[in-house]
Amino acid sequence: MLFVVGVGLKKEHLTDEAKEAISRAEKVYGSERSLTIAEDWIRGKTVVLKKFDADVYRRIEREGEERDVAILSTGDPMVAGLGKFFRNAKIIPGISSVQVALARVKADICDVSVFNAHSQNPEFFGQRNMLILARKGVQLDFPGKKMVILENLESENEKIYEVQDSFTAEENYTIVFVRVKE
Amino acid sequence: MLFVVGVGLKKEHLTDEAKEAISRAEKVYGSERSLTIAEDWIRGKTVVLKKFDADVYRRIEREGEERDVAILSTGDPMVAGLGKFFRNAKIIPGISSVQVALARVKADICDVSVFNAHSQNPEFFGQRNMLILARKGVQLDFPGKKMVILENLESENEKIYEVQDSFTAEENYTIVFVRVKE
Repeated sequence: MLFVVGVGLKKEHLTDEAKEAISRAEKVYGSERSLTIAEDWIRGKTVVLKKFDADVYRRIEREGEERDVAILSTGDPMVAGLGKFFRNAKIIPGISSVQVALARVKADICDVSVFNAHSQNPEFFGQRNMLILARKGVQLDFPGKKMVILENLESENEKIYEVQDSFTAEENYTIVFVRVKE
Repeated sequence: MLFVVGVGLKKEHLTDEAKEAISRAEKVYGSERSLTIAEDWIRGKTVVLKKFDADVYRRIEREGEERDVAILSTGDPMVAGLGKFFRNAKIIPGISSVQVALARVKADICDVSVFNAHSQNPEFFGQRNMLILARKGVQLDFPGKKMVILENLESENEKIYEVQDSFTAEENYTIVFVRVKE
């Protein structure tokens, strides 16, 4: 069985369901960060994933047909995560940066649309607030709007501040909240 | 201190962070369902919340200024939840029905907008898939579209099926996924 396991942003985010899946896996794949979050629960062999592409995913999927394998996803597998790349996997949800960001700005997901901005401005929809997952170097322009910038959530460098009109991300894990609707 | 704690949809969804906040609270408020999920970790007095309004929230907020109080939210406090009603609270995220639904249909939140449909059809945005939180009796019409219906997620009555064009929810915890974009 293949498990795609959301490990959250820190150890305290792990659910019992995630711990159980991690513990039973004979092999555990993940980024350095996700493996560190999960380390207390890993019993099998660990493999640091450096390449993320369809070939790698298909190979892991085939491995999961033979034995219990876990692939870790920082945050939640369905939030700019690995979940959508696997067809025959059990997805275990985890606490995502989107949830932490919404908790900090006190906004409900039902009033917000989430965007993964690799390089450019997402299109405005008008009625809904926007939560934008940005990487270092992404430039956002929303003339006349206030943006809440959330950097390194749940790490010791967590920083939250406001800017106006335009913003260029300086950190890889930056979330930008644009309030359109009160 | 007042904690608004997401307890997920079942005991196995509880995070260590949530357990810690629940355990330290001298008084724990919640619905029957959320109190049952958290019961193994409650040390203080429990109060079943039957009325949900601003007066009740302000009273609990004042109580949280005197001692450690937790108010439980099934799922996540920022997913059609209690989080946005409290100003001076620490919000603890939990696994929400939205995450479980996205895992089941293998869709990423960055391609989806989430709606809380109390009674009527949410407006279509065109480019994004829709995930609609519906209650019993809510009628949805999307001519020409397939909808995935997800009922009672993570309970023993969990049921997932497809319908076409229109749908009326028969259960209180129904999620409807409308795929607009592949």
